[in-house]
Amino acid sequence: MTMTTDDMASFCKRKGFVYQNSEIYGGMSGFFDYGPLGAEVKNSIKQSWWRFFIHQREDCIGIDGSIISHPTVWKASGHVDCFEDIMLVCSKCKEKIRGDTHIEDELKIAADGMKVAEINQLVREHNLKCPKCKGDFEEANDFNLMFKTQVGPSQDSKATAYLRPETAQLIFTNFRLATDNMRMKLPFGIAQVGKAFRNEISPRNFLFRCREFEQMEIEYFIHPKGLNDCPFFEEVKDHEIVYYSAKMQDEKREMEKATVGKLVTDGVIKTTWHGYWLAMAHKWYVSLGAKSENFRIRQHLDTEKSHYALDTWDLEYNFPFGWKELIGMANRTDFDLSQHIKFSKKDLSLFDEETKEKIVPHVVAEPSFGVDRSFLIFMFDAYVDDKERGNIVLKLHPKLAPIKASVFPLVNKEGLPELAKKIYKELRMDFNVTYDQSGSIGRRYARSDEIGTPLCITVDFDSKEDGTVTVRDRDTTIQERVKIDDLKNIIDAKLRT
Amino acid sequence: MTMTTDDMASFCKRKGFVYQNSEIYGGMSGFFDYGPLGAEVKNSIKQSWWRFFIHQREDCIGIDGSIISHPTVWKASGHVDCFEDIMLVCSKCKEKIRGDTHIEDELKIAADGMKVAEINQLVREHNLKCPKCKGDFEEANDFNLMFKTQVGPSQDSKATAYLRPETAQLIFTNFRLATDNMRMKLPFGIAQVGKAFRNEISPRNFLFRCREFEQMEIEYFIHPKGLNDCPFFEEVKDHEIVYYSAKMQDEKREMEKATVGKLVTDGVIKTTWHGYWLAMAHKWYVSLGAKSENFRIRQHLDTEKSHYALDTWDLEYNFPFGWKELIGMANRTDFDLSQHIKFSKKDLSLFDEETKEKIVPHVVAEPSFGVDRSFLIFMFDAYVDDKERGNIVLKLHPKLAPIKASVFPLVNKEGLPELAKKIYKELRMDFNVTYDQSGSIGRRYARSDEIGTPLCITVDFDSKEDGTVTVRDRDTTIQERVKIDDLKNIIDAKLRT
Repeated sequence: MTMTTDDMASFCKRKGFVYQNSEIYGGMSGFFDYGPLGAEVKNSIKQSWWRFFIHQREDCIGIDGSIISHPTVWKASGHVDCFEDIMLVCSKCKEKIRGDTHIEDELKIAADGMKVAEINQLVREHNLKCPKCKGDFEEANDFNLMFKTQVGPSQDSKATAYLRPETAQLIFTNFRLATDNMRMKLPFGIAQVGKAFRNEISPRNFLFRCREFEQMEIEYFIHPKGLNDCPFFEEVKDHEIVYYSAKMQDEKREMEKATVGKLVTDGVIKTTWHGYWLAMAHKWYVSLGAKSENFRIRQHLDTEKSHYALDTWDLEYNFPFGWKELIGMANRTDFDLSQHIKFSKKDLSLFDEETKEKIVPHVVAEPSFGVDRSFLIFMFDAYVDDKERGNIVLKLHPKLAPIKASVFPLVNKEGLPELAKKIYKELRMDFNVTYDQSGSIGRRYARSDEIGTPLCITVDFDSKEDGTVTVRDRDTTIQERVKIDDLKNIIDAKLRT
Repeated sequence: MTMTTDDMASFCKRKGFVYQNSEIYGGMSGFFDYGPLGAEVKNSIKQSWWRFFIHQREDCIGIDGSIISHPTVWKASGHVDCFEDIMLVCSKCKEKIRGDTHIEDELKIAADGMKVAEINQLVREHNLKCPKCKGDFEEANDFNLMFKTQVGPSQDSKATAYLRPETAQLIFTNFRLATDNMRMKLPFGIAQVGKAFRNEISPRNFLFRCREFEQMEIEYFIHPKGLNDCPFFEEVKDHEIVYYSAKMQDEKREMEKATVGKLVTDGVIKTTWHGYWLAMAHKWYVSLGAKSENFRIRQHLDTEKSHYALDTWDLEYNFPFGWKELIGMANRTDFDLSQHIKFSKKDLSLFDEETKEKIVPHVVAEPSFGVDRSFLIFMFDAYVDDKERGNIVLKLHPKLAPIKASVFPLVNKEGLPELAKKIYKELRMDFNVTYDQSGSIGRRYARSDEIGTPLCITVDFDSKEDGTVTVRDRDTTIQERVKIDDLKNIIDAKLRT
């Protein structure tokens, strides 16, 4: 029996990972708070991502822009005019729901990207009704997903600003300053991690579709003539991935597995750059313990593409509620920079030293990760109901585990708690560790398993004599006797696996 | 000649630390974007804070709540009714400015916390005029500082929600869940790092007063009868700090220096808990390279206190524009939890195992740090215009330095770039390092100094023969010859200073 999203939400609440926001006031739909353990996991995801995609690469830099920007930013980007979902309103009870997902739920067909006219036609054809009161729907209409607010003391329409619906635009508005400061040469990426907001008509599936969420985005810029010039492609060409092209979807064929090298050679993925970034995104998830087989790449159908994209592939994950987008990777061309050049009348081009021309670089790929969706999949892939042990074992990668080790005295007497506390206090200077002296050792092991603590350190009577302790591994349950002085290195090594 | 805030803003822009938000659209007042180097420093500040106040302590846990919450949260907290500044509006040109700061600027008196009637009286008495057009002001009025938005598809007043003006309330709304999950026993702290928003009438002083900013907050809970039972007070009692009590301010005396132990014994600081947290906040800043002598603690006058606070002390910093609040530390009593109990009708009390009573814990101190203000003071204290070297040296603590080391080939030939790149690529796996081969070595040293890089590693002709390089220290300019194999340990040691 596989776990549902509701089961995961309830586990996350019970163990202190994630809570419904404002729970004491009946909850706020589409908003979540990370509890003490979830906050640690989330921080680790973001820090690991930043290290992997920025510090460990020579071609990427990071910025950290604000959530509220000048409203013209969102005019230029197209969000003021086009960032909309289709809303169905019940003529009887006035319930408001999202059109495409209602179509998907009722008719079991893909409806993402459908226009108002198509939705209206399907509603009429199939005589779809309000799920709440069975009333008829009014004509469908567009609903802009950006949250509005007023900035400054004049609370009028001229003061209207938006909460960013994506972090990406801040990369474009700061493009000139950041690239000049860091003397960037094409190809290069600019990354950002931060909150974004979308006023979803029907938030659902726990952390999957929230109104407030966090993104980890890279905009990767290349020379417009260098679409196939990825110098790193060699690194990923043997990387295997399950793929599902638009053609395969059209022809209702099954998805297949291939190397990224073959997919590019065969023209399924159009450029080496796109192939490279799809593979890197997959590799990052797997490097942190996600299960390779739960991922696939799927090409957007023509009807789904964003207003700016030449070609889009999603990295998808096999959620309990189906294959869904984890990260969207669009070839945005020079759409965004050109729009900002047009609206700001500023020169955002780069100087090409070879051709002596000014060029507007292309965004060839946009590895845009959702932090909350990433959290969710790491949790799904880590969760094991171990019948033999009789408890849940959360097999999070040690880098993501909220607590790296827990220190126990075998019994609460004869100086064992004092020695265990001493060890705990020393380890605490370097790692997030806990001390636990309550209940049987078995109970304490189980409690650690359930929150994913990779190592349990037990201080027993021998410890006082010979300066050793037992270290028990979460995944194997094997206990090893080690020197207290080696504990720091043992935890450190675990974090580098 | 000391540096002004404008000088710092211009330095930050020039070197890639901080930009005005939406600069290409003329800027958005009160909003800033961190550039590639600033984003690194800001991340390091937040991570160091989290390690110091959460991981390295046994009594604190962290959470990560959302920016938008149920509107009743802000009704209960008092923000809907009381979180206001006084606005002066020019009757002629309709310019809107903040009343208290205008009084402070014009009359050079403290006006923080003044009521509308007092402001109106001072405006009349001194015949204060609009700074823009010299017109008369209308009657002053209150202006709520919370940003409003509408959540959900019904864009009416019932859908109104607020962007959080402080992160603290999320700690109170999640109090029950977080303390139960983590089996917390008093005294303990719950911490949070995240964005907050205040629609300041007149944002100013660069990062000091922004409309969007980031906080690092701890709410520290104690037994209501334990106001003087701080078990850690011994750790800070000999810590020296400059203080400025309400009495000294009333009597127009000079500030003085004393140990925290003496201040508590003398009753200047009312509780050991308050003394402890003021000292810890000061110690944290100093541990990361801020200059001890640029800080003081100042007690709030009765007129300044927040609506919930029993006693408030600010940790202040000597900014170019005067002594200003860096962190506010209020004794919030049980105000917040009691308000949320009242509004939510939920039991947020803890069970006292000794007295068998239910108690509502008191927040004895609220070490609430501004990330942006912290960034600003670390930058001010690090900035040195070194006339002898002929360049700026940014003496940031290595933990906060955006780039930990830079690797140079002495000349761009005979295999030196290849060897330097090899070293760079290896170090990059563990640290944020750069490679630089452009310009003279002197120019590259200067460039590294200006952005605060602690170590410069130069590969020369001997390197190829004997596997050694020179390491040059930013602060002393001393160069040492070391083995390439030791570089990782050398950087690691530098980060632990």
